[in-house]
Amino acid sequence: MASIGIVGGTGYTGSELLRLLSAHPQVKVRVITSRADAGQRVADVLPMLRGRCDLVFQDPARAPLSDCDLVFFATPNGTAMAQAPALLEAGARVIDLAADFRIKDLSVWEHWYGLRHGAPALVDEAVYGLPEVNREAIRGARLVANPGCYPTAITLGLLPLLEADAIEPARIVADGKSGVSGAGRKATAGLLMAEVGESFKAYSVAGHRHEPEIEETLRLSTGRAVSLTFVPHLVPMVRGIEATIYAPRKRADVDLTALFDQRYRDEPCVDVMPAALPLETRSVRGTNLCRLSVMEPQGKGVVVVQSVIDNLVKGAAGQAVQNMNLMLGFPESTGLDAVALVP
Amino acid sequence: MASIGIVGGTGYTGSELLRLLSAHPQVKVRVITSRADAGQRVADVLPMLRGRCDLVFQDPARAPLSDCDLVFFATPNGTAMAQAPALLEAGARVIDLAADFRIKDLSVWEHWYGLRHGAPALVDEAVYGLPEVNREAIRGARLVANPGCYPTAITLGLLPLLEADAIEPARIVADGKSGVSGAGRKATAGLLMAEVGESFKAYSVAGHRHEPEIEETLRLSTGRAVSLTFVPHLVPMVRGIEATIYAPRKRADVDLTALFDQRYRDEPCVDVMPAALPLETRSVRGTNLCRLSVMEPQGKGVVVVQSVIDNLVKGAAGQAVQNMNLMLGFPESTGLDAVALVP
Amino acid sequence: MASIGIVGGTGYTGSELLRLLSAHPQVKVRVITSRADAGQRVADVLPMLRGRCDLVFQDPARAPLSDCDLVFFATPNGTAMAQAPALLEAGARVIDLAADFRIKDLSVWEHWYGLRHGAPALVDEAVYGLPEVNREAIRGARLVANPGCYPTAITLGLLPLLEADAIEPARIVADGKSGVSGAGRKATAGLLMAEVGESFKAYSVAGHRHEPEIEETLRLSTGRAVSLTFVPHLVPMVRGIEATIYAPRKRADVDLTALFDQRYRDEPCVDVMPAALPLETRSVRGTNLCRLSVMEPQGKGVVVVQSVIDNLVKGAAGQAVQNMNLMLGFPESTGLDAVALVP
Amino acid sequence: MASIGIVGGTGYTGSELLRLLSAHPQVKVRVITSRADAGQRVADVLPMLRGRCDLVFQDPARAPLSDCDLVFFATPNGTAMAQAPALLEAGARVIDLAADFRIKDLSVWEHWYGLRHGAPALVDEAVYGLPEVNREAIRGARLVANPGCYPTAITLGLLPLLEADAIEPARIVADGKSGVSGAGRKATAGLLMAEVGESFKAYSVAGHRHEPEIEETLRLSTGRAVSLTFVPHLVPMVRGIEATIYAPRKRADVDLTALFDQRYRDEPCVDVMPAALPLETRSVRGTNLCRLSVMEPQGKGVVVVQSVIDNLVKGAAGQAVQNMNLMLGFPESTGLDAVALVP
Repeated sequence: MASIGIVGGTGYTGSELLRLLSAHPQVKVRVITSRADAGQRVADVLPMLRGRCDLVFQDPARAPLSDCDLVFFATPNGTAMAQAPALLEAGARVIDLAADFRIKDLSVWEHWYGLRHGAPALVDEAVYGLPEVNREAIRGARLVANPGCYPTAITLGLLPLLEADAIEPARIVADGKSGVSGAGRKATAGLLMAEVGESFKAYSVAGHRHEPEIEETLRLSTGRAVSLTFVPHLVPMVRGIEATIYAPRKRADVDLTALFDQRYRDEPCVDVMPAALPLETRSVRGTNLCRLSVMEPQGKGVVVVQSVIDNLVKGAAGQAVQNMNLMLGFPESTGLDAVALVP
Repeated sequence: MASIGIVGGTGYTGSELLRLLSAHPQVKVRVITSRADAGQRVADVLPMLRGRCDLVFQDPARAPLSDCDLVFFATPNGTAMAQAPALLEAGARVIDLAADFRIKDLSVWEHWYGLRHGAPALVDEAVYGLPEVNREAIRGARLVANPGCYPTAITLGLLPLLEADAIEPARIVADGKSGVSGAGRKATAGLLMAEVGESFKAYSVAGHRHEPEIEETLRLSTGRAVSLTFVPHLVPMVRGIEATIYAPRKRADVDLTALFDQRYRDEPCVDVMPAALPLETRSVRGTNLCRLSVMEPQGKGVVVVQSVIDNLVKGAAGQAVQNMNLMLGFPESTGLDAVALVP
Repeated sequence: MASIGIVGGTGYTGSELLRLLSAHPQVKVRVITSRADAGQRVADVLPMLRGRCDLVFQDPARAPLSDCDLVFFATPNGTAMAQAPALLEAGARVIDLAADFRIKDLSVWEHWYGLRHGAPALVDEAVYGLPEVNREAIRGARLVANPGCYPTAITLGLLPLLEADAIEPARIVADGKSGVSGAGRKATAGLLMAEVGESFKAYSVAGHRHEPEIEETLRLSTGRAVSLTFVPHLVPMVRGIEATIYAPRKRADVDLTALFDQRYRDEPCVDVMPAALPLETRSVRGTNLCRLSVMEPQGKGVVVVQSVIDNLVKGAAGQAVQNMNLMLGFPESTGLDAVALVP
Repeated sequence: MASIGIVGGTGYTGSELLRLLSAHPQVKVRVITSRADAGQRVADVLPMLRGRCDLVFQDPARAPLSDCDLVFFATPNGTAMAQAPALLEAGARVIDLAADFRIKDLSVWEHWYGLRHGAPALVDEAVYGLPEVNREAIRGARLVANPGCYPTAITLGLLPLLEADAIEPARIVADGKSGVSGAGRKATAGLLMAEVGESFKAYSVAGHRHEPEIEETLRLSTGRAVSLTFVPHLVPMVRGIEATIYAPRKRADVDLTALFDQRYRDEPCVDVMPAALPLETRSVRGTNLCRLSVMEPQGKGVVVVQSVIDNLVKGAAGQAVQNMNLMLGFPESTGLDAVALVP
């Protein structure tokens, strides 16, 4: 049994890691930290874990994280870049679920995150943890940057098209929609149910941090400079992301669905759906799947990709476990085989 | 007091007409029909109208509709084209809230609606009831085709840009999202709350009837042939439509918000919001407003318009009342001045 | 036009007062305060009021409230008892939407609210603003204590039964359910949509402040000492309260529905429904109505009352306007005649 | 591997059985029937099962159900009583998730279900499948009547109190609340999201079939004749049942929480929570747990029990799998150890 640490256990990605790892046969969470809840039993703070978790939240300053084989950071941006160096030094491997190591271009990162980066050398070393792109590198990595939720859904939706040169890389549009858990568990008036229930809105229209992440990943993995306009929206539901992606078609001779089928044939966590079937966020609820479909409606020259994930699983904790499985040499889907909770 | 008839009173657009007209000082609903509920008191079927409506649902075959000054059709597609001719003949004016008279090009209409049109001559005569485009023609019309819900939101969002030649008319994308009341009150398993609650999905991706309606309206009103890719989505909420519209920018010298402000300055039912304020569907809930904002995010050459309406009000019954006010010579906003129900 | 002030304009009861009063033909809001938003335009903070409200939030310390004919306190508990004395002295009338003057028994109040009361003499003078009980006293009052939301729904449901001695006053059970707007607009993690969406729970089971309020009101108005067990629950919706009330039946000879019909026949804001019709919170959404129905299921000796209100209207701001109408001599329902927003 | 059949696979209990059994290591679903979807692949009708289920829906008239070791009926009331006799005869064991065998008193059953019973002898033989009451009998049963959803939550909440003679058995009140999936997947206008979203209501107030089921179970298992008033309510969410139960306290000397702890100490699917912790339906979402807490608020002589289950799991398919495990000699919780999906 590998020994696991989690820094920041009371946010949604932290508790989702606990949920997923409690069913994982080859690892055991040994340490979990929370500044606010230090000293409290995990099962008292997160009652769904009663009977499944004996841990007590520890103060991050005193927790024996460096004894762990692998440590997840489920923390706000800026935490992992401060603490990861010492853990790596001590021999632990690290997966950061925040954004500290997602963008290679430091000036872009510092512009969008408004911070000076604390560990620039590690940015170079870090592997972007999208297994469908970087599987082999992840296996050997000490430090993995777990992708953002929207970037996971959107990058997987665009990869086959860009790799096959089937779309124009300029003027791509991604219209993203997320359930409210994507915003985390911060006490913010704007996320009260009385504010966001029974309503729908776009947010961060002027610019969202996930846009440069997607553009960089696509450029590095396909060699094409992509110009993406990305507008996220808030859906009055708890879990789930849907992205509808629009791109000018370049090659009319490509069978779009076949292209996706071929690209993702061996991927355990991507499911290409026939274009005729509806694609609902609930069809991946609680699972580590990305479901995709693609078509060119009405022959108008615009390729439309639909992509759905559970923002807390394939969009965060589940993908982190998938990366952990690769890093620790376990079968990639270990602990990730739940059927979606429908309805 | 003008005398009003409503054909089809138990669907959502019918009951919304009753709600709005019950507060209208210059008209009185005299006749309301429902095949299924004929003989029942309106207030027993629609308890929110207890104490506010003394009518009894009448069988459409026997209802004295031709005595009314104006008759609304809140019926499935195909009904108005069969019954409107006789009513017009008898001197009543008619507003059809369904799609029978929305599209001038009969072959397009017949393709998308799968019906042979029963009153082609009236298609020519009918005025498309978008007051922001056809105000004067509506005033004099015998027959008004009330626009679809998505077309109202999307057309109003594109008009200023096309009129000013500020965007390329090809490869426009409209990503629409609607609350579930947009699908009507039909007993369909796919619209059960257990099916659509806590989930989000696109639908009719391969093609939706509102796409040709929008393209035709924009072409006829601006003289530009528009190619639109429109993908609608279902939001787990009851009321509200949001459309996020993406179009390649053509003229960099235009101040986009000023353009919208100027276009809609005198419009009582359109509100242009500063781009910095959030645009939520709830901000128009229960009202006849379309709220819009416009910007070009990150200077990437793509103009983004946000548009929100209440699908049952500005997207259906409210716009029908606005058209009625114009046709009967009342101030345009009479009975339409509610403040949105927030939260 | 009477001149109105509102202390605390950015909470839900404050903004609901603005919504309702914007449609009131005989009053004008002249002053509105908000510590947090002082200096900002109301319509920028509450966009649904764009075009309907020209006011700017004022600092409560400097606002000319004493020039108003009537001042509403839409503030946390403890504010009105500090500020009302000076306003009353200056000749303004006051309606407190918080709990400062709701309970006559000071020791009970201080126990449940954990505060020392700052204006004990005014507690005696204040009239409990439930028009169905205290209409005449309200007309002449300087200071009205607007009832709590649950107390409005539950007291109206029990009054006819206790007045007619039709139930045992001991072991009454009220199972209350409220939408999340009842908790106000405070930034609290426990009220995030990700915490309360798609879930249902009881809260304050050990005891809730509204229990002594209901017991006292019923005792003072019917002369009977009532023992009530009240358990509130949180519903994943925004607006609405439903209470299902259970009481041991005492007199079998009473026609329960007739009893309610008779008690509320002349009440403009209470609607007794036939027991066979469903009673939904949405049937009063946005309105100042309390809808009630009553029956004894299966002849088991337990009377069951259902009661629904909109917690922000009849449960707060609407009832406050009803009280204002009485105090200022306007017809009682002025500005309160909206039809419920259904669906 | 035991061989399993499911009659009626497209309703919510049927698809939930598929979800749960797909993770069960000791059984394999061999046959699944659906009249409406016969011939279609299960994974096309229920996309969340793509890659997890190779079955094709079979016509019930031709399906080889009698070759199965155990057959679940996930059908409307009246089906199992017609088909179970032949299957039992052929040596299969049967679990009925509908109500055909839940009530021993035939006249009561026929009164509430409006049917003449087709297999009265089997009613005597059938074991009521509440493991916490009938564990040993279930192990040996050929035919198990799986309890209703509300009866599971309410019976488990009352058992310890009645067994210990801690409450008066008359005038017990159970106020139940259910998510909309409890009503099944029938195309009914009254269950459209536009009808039940953002609203809350009681239903079947005059009497609900689960009331006699609960009363009979409690009488047979505790020897006490119980008089229960049960009012169910519909919550605008998909999954989950909460029941708040009120009963006059009889013995003041009993430590209520200790009583529950002791009664359920060895139960794998019941979790007694400390009274101070909140009890939310989401804390059991997707799990086979019933979580309970108990207290006497304010010392008023009324015991209040809160009980939450997932209506489709412990309230239906999960409890059926628990019963199957007992009948087939597997560890009782096999396949039922998921952690709740929170948030």
